[in-house]
Amino acid sequence: MNDRSTASNSRDAVYAAALEAFAEKGFHGASMRDIARRAGVVLSNLYHYADSKSDLLVELLKKANYDHLSATEWALTGADASPRHRLEAAVKAYVGYIVDHPMEALIAHSELRYLGDDDRKRLVMARDRVEALFDGIIEDGVRAGTFTTSHSRGVTRAVLTMCAGIAQWYRQDGRLSREDIAGEYADYALALVGSIHD
Amino acid sequence: MNDRSTASNSRDAVYAAALEAFAEKGFHGASMRDIARRAGVVLSNLYHYADSKSDLLVELLKKANYDHLSATEWALTGADASPRHRLEAAVKAYVGYIVDHPMEALIAHSELRYLGDDDRKRLVMARDRVEALFDGIIEDGVRAGTFTTSHSRGVTRAVLTMCAGIAQWYRQDGRLSREDIAGEYADYALALVGSIHD
Repeated sequence: MNDRSTASNSRDAVYAAALEAFAEKGFHGASMRDIARRAGVVLSNLYHYADSKSDLLVELLKKANYDHLSATEWALTGADASPRHRLEAAVKAYVGYIVDHPMEALIAHSELRYLGDDDRKRLVMARDRVEALFDGIIEDGVRAGTFTTSHSRGVTRAVLTMCAGIAQWYRQDGRLSREDIAGEYADYALALVGSIHD
Repeated sequence: MNDRSTASNSRDAVYAAALEAFAEKGFHGASMRDIARRAGVVLSNLYHYADSKSDLLVELLKKANYDHLSATEWALTGADASPRHRLEAAVKAYVGYIVDHPMEALIAHSELRYLGDDDRKRLVMARDRVEALFDGIIEDGVRAGTFTTSHSRGVTRAVLTMCAGIAQWYRQDGRLSREDIAGEYADYALALVGSIHD
């Protein structure tokens, strides 16, 4: 039992160390040696968890993307059928994840460009599913006539990048609470889709 | 005359090389040696233009931020007094700069976090002026009753980060032209401030 829990703790420690190193120094600035040191494992041991630095970044972002998707999907299971309420719930959950995981959100946006095409492909599935989820809600609202945007194809991207920007400026000790920000960005998303009360 | 033009060309070449290197490899991944090589100058010569890699990044971003501000201010000199038209013109110009300078826009958002506090302070002036410019237009619109947002304090940041996100996905050979994107994002900004026709 001890062996297992140690293995799982080391794995978590490695990914936590990689996250911290990538956030602080960027993909190219972070070294495997530095990540091993932060994780408290010897360098050769680090390769037990990932074949390369790219692998670490891919696995880290894959987990972050799926957690982000999952948090958003979970919020929707509690929302009623109105596109307005669904969009509100989805944006609040999406923003909540960013506020709770600013390092993951930062890296997902700034370090993705250093990955090769094959590695990127390993990451698109969760991202595509998040986009499809928002596209679906927005299309439903447009079809029902409660969302009036004429840019149903681009507005999801505008909503998601606007939310991603929060990771750039959010500070835990700032003026706005997690709930303030989630509510404010839900209002922005409703404005962007041209929501009228339903 | 030749001396001068050579000096000015080298300076431009150094900054173009730094831009390319930072965009491709990030601040920590790019080395002074690599930047010198790309610029076609010897390493010792590079230090004639900047004391350090941070200095290169600061000067690069300072110029980019001022150019971005200037493009936006210039567009406003041709706009009439209506907050709606002013916001439209400002967003179109702001987006136009991002589409024309995706590398600068990318670096400004992803590499800024590697600068120390003092270096950051050297950059905030242009950024603060851009924010003040948008804040001013939005406050005018709210005061005139043509913008109905209840988030006049946060909406500028939402508009600007949404626009900055364009640098992440814009491709010159993509479906959308520069004008399409500028128009689309002007519409989004008007939606965000809750613009009603004036």
